[in-house]
Amino acid sequence: MDRCKDVSVQQAAALLQAQNHILILCHQKPDGDTLGSGFALLYALLSLGKTARIECSDGVPQKFAYLHTDYDLTHQPEFEPEYVVAVDIADVQLFGESTARYSDRVGLCIDHHPSNSRYAAHLLLDPKAAGTVEKIEEVIRALGVTIDLRIATCLYTGLTTDTGCFRYSNVTARTHYLAAQLLEAGVDHFPIDKLMFETKTPARLDLERQVLETLEYAFEGRLAFLVITQQMMETAGALEEDTDGIAAIPRQIAGVEVGITLKQKGERSYRVSMRTNQQINASVVCGKLGGGGHARAAGCTIQADLEQAKAMLQNALAPEFARCDAQAGRKGDG
Amino acid sequence: MDRCKDVSVQQAAALLQAQNHILILCHQKPDGDTLGSGFALLYALLSLGKTARIECSDGVPQKFAYLHTDYDLTHQPEFEPEYVVAVDIADVQLFGESTARYSDRVGLCIDHHPSNSRYAAHLLLDPKAAGTVEKIEEVIRALGVTIDLRIATCLYTGLTTDTGCFRYSNVTARTHYLAAQLLEAGVDHFPIDKLMFETKTPARLDLERQVLETLEYAFEGRLAFLVITQQMMETAGALEEDTDGIAAIPRQIAGVEVGITLKQKGERSYRVSMRTNQQINASVVCGKLGGGGHARAAGCTIQADLEQAKAMLQNALAPEFARCDAQAGRKGDG
Repeated sequence: MDRCKDVSVQQAAALLQAQNHILILCHQKPDGDTLGSGFALLYALLSLGKTARIECSDGVPQKFAYLHTDYDLTHQPEFEPEYVVAVDIADVQLFGESTARYSDRVGLCIDHHPSNSRYAAHLLLDPKAAGTVEKIEEVIRALGVTIDLRIATCLYTGLTTDTGCFRYSNVTARTHYLAAQLLEAGVDHFPIDKLMFETKTPARLDLERQVLETLEYAFEGRLAFLVITQQMMETAGALEEDTDGIAAIPRQIAGVEVGITLKQKGERSYRVSMRTNQQINASVVCGKLGGGGHARAAGCTIQADLEQAKAMLQNALAPEFARCDAQAGRKGDG
Repeated sequence: MDRCKDVSVQQAAALLQAQNHILILCHQKPDGDTLGSGFALLYALLSLGKTARIECSDGVPQKFAYLHTDYDLTHQPEFEPEYVVAVDIADVQLFGESTARYSDRVGLCIDHHPSNSRYAAHLLLDPKAAGTVEKIEEVIRALGVTIDLRIATCLYTGLTTDTGCFRYSNVTARTHYLAAQLLEAGVDHFPIDKLMFETKTPARLDLERQVLETLEYAFEGRLAFLVITQQMMETAGALEEDTDGIAAIPRQIAGVEVGITLKQKGERSYRVSMRTNQQINASVVCGKLGGGGHARAAGCTIQADLEQAKAMLQNALAPEFARCDAQAGRKGDG
């Protein structure tokens, strides 16, 4: 039985308004949307006089330090949470180790992933939102809190990172209207976008060099594979965050419909990131292999050696390419 | 005496309204803003029943073919223009060969370059506009023409290309408001942005892989070198245009102040692209080696073998880094 209740923006705001000692959780391997959402909501709740704190299993990467310039993350109030809010967390598996214990007592989840597994008591879900921050902004307004520069900076961060700087297909008119309002609130977008999209660590660049050597095509150049091994990570001295954006590379190649990045997790374990252009639903394909996600970006984990993993992915994709070929009326030879 | 008269959006619209047999000119080596501006204005004038055509000295690159899907560029009406409009052309030198003859009889120039040399009889100039398309949109509205999907697609193209997909410092709230309106008009932004910013040829990616292997640092990681050899170009099967953007890579590395790309032109000949972040004037340094350019992006050509060329560049940069160190009050050891 689905015990999760869908709520509106107004209802979500009312739930938050009624609570105190609120714990806000972000997903593991935090990105700009989960952190932007979390900090924006935190600052809004604090401005209402609530006691609240934010937690993320993997901590807040240095890259996002500007989100909490005026907030001391190392001295957050300690309390037994009366209410737990999860932002941008699609499934309990994404809480990560240190916050997993809260996953069965989430009062409110605010999210935009269509695959949300409805683990929370109340769910504010909008799969059409480009980022969870789009919903957070509405909730903050419903709470009667002014979007000041600090909150606007958090919201902009989620918006720009989850849309690849307004480039992805999830961008709508609403996304740009919100961006306009955030710039009007004083957000200095340029250094944020430069930091998020242009700056690379030397380790990242070295990793990229090694990863590009693994580039391999299949299905007549319509599928491209990249591999990130543990060995490469070590050689480059790369951190987890240095792999950001690498999964986007294979889909950028002219003619490629499906780009897959396999990141080694153990000797026979690979985390798969699949990006598709327009014809193939990545979420469906990854679903066949026990994963999920969005239509254009999904993932799964495969326990196999590298060549087996690639073969499994090709097998899962073969009927999809055949269907595309049939629709396009051309001969498919898979 | 300045014979150029500044006009408002309303005045510009009135000038166009009063004319017929209008020739619209774009600048040479056309980009998305000049072409997006030109085609948007063309379609607006045609919808008013005017006779008009568009010209660009270098033609319209294949990449921008979607701007004129329903308009036959090869069979434009021939007429002796009664009125010449220049869009996004800052100076007469930028007309290019085949349209240079019109440069002294431009009735109206619509532009956003602060350096506009005021060569036209009337000038609608807005240096705060992120793209000339921002002004074109206002003129089209003032003409009473509805922004249909075709016009909106042209305007979006100018907006996104002149802002690096909403990333550059020229983006304002207005830019995002206009983008929102254009998406509401039905623009399918994703394939446009993908084509303009994301798509890389397999040859380009292979070239990038080889080039990254040459990455070398100096001055404690504050200078980064990349090298593109003729051999690499051949191995990758890369065209000249596949090198676009590679010169931007070294400066993107965290901690790097000066990024230098050396592109081999002959056995002992290298074209140098220098990009700097904020402390060192690239134009001054390249000037020492017989080149020039802007403060943040400059170039020169060095006739020497690779290691000599690097040494010459380091010698030219050493006093600059020493000056930075002195200013920062830290010990410079070059």
